[in-house]
Amino acid sequence: MRKGIIRVKKCPSIIGHASAVGNKEHEGPLGNFFDFHDESDRFGQKTWELAESEMQHIALNLALKKSNTDPKNLDGLFAGDLINQCSSSNYGLSDAGVPFFGLYGACSTSAEGLMLATLFLNASPSLQTAAVVTSSHNCSSERQFRYPVEYGGQRPPTAQWTVTGSGAFILGEGEGAYITELLPGIIRDEGINDPANMGAAMAPAAIDTLKRYFDESGMLPSDFDGIYTGDLGYEGHSIVTEKMAEYGYDMTKNYNDCGLLIYDLERQDVHAGGSGCGCSASVLSSYILPKLEHGEMTDILYIATGALMSPMAILQGKTIPGIAHLIRITKERCL
Amino acid sequence: MRKGIIRVKKCPSIIGHASAVGNKEHEGPLGNFFDFHDESDRFGQKTWELAESEMQHIALNLALKKSNTDPKNLDGLFAGDLINQCSSSNYGLSDAGVPFFGLYGACSTSAEGLMLATLFLNASPSLQTAAVVTSSHNCSSERQFRYPVEYGGQRPPTAQWTVTGSGAFILGEGEGAYITELLPGIIRDEGINDPANMGAAMAPAAIDTLKRYFDESGMLPSDFDGIYTGDLGYEGHSIVTEKMAEYGYDMTKNYNDCGLLIYDLERQDVHAGGSGCGCSASVLSSYILPKLEHGEMTDILYIATGALMSPMAILQGKTIPGIAHLIRITKERCL
Repeated sequence: MRKGIIRVKKCPSIIGHASAVGNKEHEGPLGNFFDFHDESDRFGQKTWELAESEMQHIALNLALKKSNTDPKNLDGLFAGDLINQCSSSNYGLSDAGVPFFGLYGACSTSAEGLMLATLFLNASPSLQTAAVVTSSHNCSSERQFRYPVEYGGQRPPTAQWTVTGSGAFILGEGEGAYITELLPGIIRDEGINDPANMGAAMAPAAIDTLKRYFDESGMLPSDFDGIYTGDLGYEGHSIVTEKMAEYGYDMTKNYNDCGLLIYDLERQDVHAGGSGCGCSASVLSSYILPKLEHGEMTDILYIATGALMSPMAILQGKTIPGIAHLIRITKERCL
Repeated sequence: MRKGIIRVKKCPSIIGHASAVGNKEHEGPLGNFFDFHDESDRFGQKTWELAESEMQHIALNLALKKSNTDPKNLDGLFAGDLINQCSSSNYGLSDAGVPFFGLYGACSTSAEGLMLATLFLNASPSLQTAAVVTSSHNCSSERQFRYPVEYGGQRPPTAQWTVTGSGAFILGEGEGAYITELLPGIIRDEGINDPANMGAAMAPAAIDTLKRYFDESGMLPSDFDGIYTGDLGYEGHSIVTEKMAEYGYDMTKNYNDCGLLIYDLERQDVHAGGSGCGCSASVLSSYILPKLEHGEMTDILYIATGALMSPMAILQGKTIPGIAHLIRITKERCL
């Protein structure tokens, strides 16, 4: 079936992964699970943009180290972020010396990268190891998409808090959870034009991808140990749960969102939850993958969601298109 | 060999391709070869950004029509551009209803897309048709990267003129030139920090990729009917020719640059030549591929080059990293 679930012959395993985050993320419920954090959010750099680049650098190097991978053996590096011209990735990874594929999938980049890296490793027997890196930084994002942090702009309850974090993943042959199925996202735009309500803007894309997955596979949400969207937050999570129920899929038992997991919504004043490329990537690395590796879960769906808007397009009266890429990750090799 | 030339089993053919350009490009030496042009550069839209999106929309639809491809049969769409958050692609292609992979490779995007689409089609037998689209618009780029056009800023002789153009390519099984070999680019930064001299900033990446290709394959520049870089312009083209000679590769016979081909440098006041994602893509579609299809050439190298800088990074004192992805395109199927 065209546009359907992609099942590859060689299911790569995630042989290494790491996360680097900021202070607020370290103070959150997953605080102890991250590999690296910097209380100043600056990571030794003079600007927020350079700090974000440095986070990617740290996360990639930690993931390489944890998987005992020499960067010389990387056949490809897939990376992207939210900053204009994807400069966090381009500058943060410019010294890696690895064939480089720049991506822009907004907050869906972690899943887009894992998907393209999996396809890459299946394209030729000569391709054996690939890396995926993505990040976001609260201060570089706020300045670019909304207001400078110092301005202290009021945020409505539907607004999400851009995560300061980076996640890096090494895919290849070895120990680790396996990427088993892929369902690429299709752009969906339901006319939401409020950049302070990204959850609602991205939810239709997540619903579209999830519905296509369950319809085609014949599986049910309850067949999985966990279903995790990227960064829909409270608002988007509710919309997905409600709408999927209308389609006959009960998501109330095991569906969570990385934007809800990374912060304590009551305590941390983040309104509707976390967002940003670094949200889903750092939660996947720190929280979800270890559960698969330790056998607490054996089969999950990971759906990173992206709002493909630009501030300029919003000013010009456009709405917010969303996309959601789905990856099935299992403890055991190809099903 | 790791990080080397990728030879895939299934060499896709470029079964359809199209270009849409602005007025200056239509007035240039390749004017009659483009499929579509708009003398106003506005493509019926109110803003330059929306005009650029519309160009992508036009180019994709023309390429689908020329190859008799139903968009329903596209397994994947790879697209990107220069505008913040890749909004030209995200908005221009949001109604395509096709699995979408957003890319950011600056002006290397056409080759990055063709490369990833080729790998995609080799990853699973279920994947049979893919599209690649990219664009740039002089006015949206000038506003974002330099000055608003109305400001009339002076441009130094090394500056290039961002092409108003889009190229779209349909890859699959059928008639057309074949994508035979791939050599992904590695980021190179030689410390150039002048955004008015992109040719010099990107040349080291082109040299690196070309040298790696010739060293590994044992082939010589003279083995090809043509070698085309993306948008190095006069400055970058000279640097590549000179430096490659030092490495023992004579590029003086058959090496050209899409940025030099698209304009008449004497007559059109474009200084060092054309640039932008749309430069190499529209020249590949309008000029290079037809020569392969008609048998005037049988074997070429296409190396799209990208400057992975951002205006913010330059303001923060960073230099300009470059990347160059190489694709070998032949008249006959896999070698």
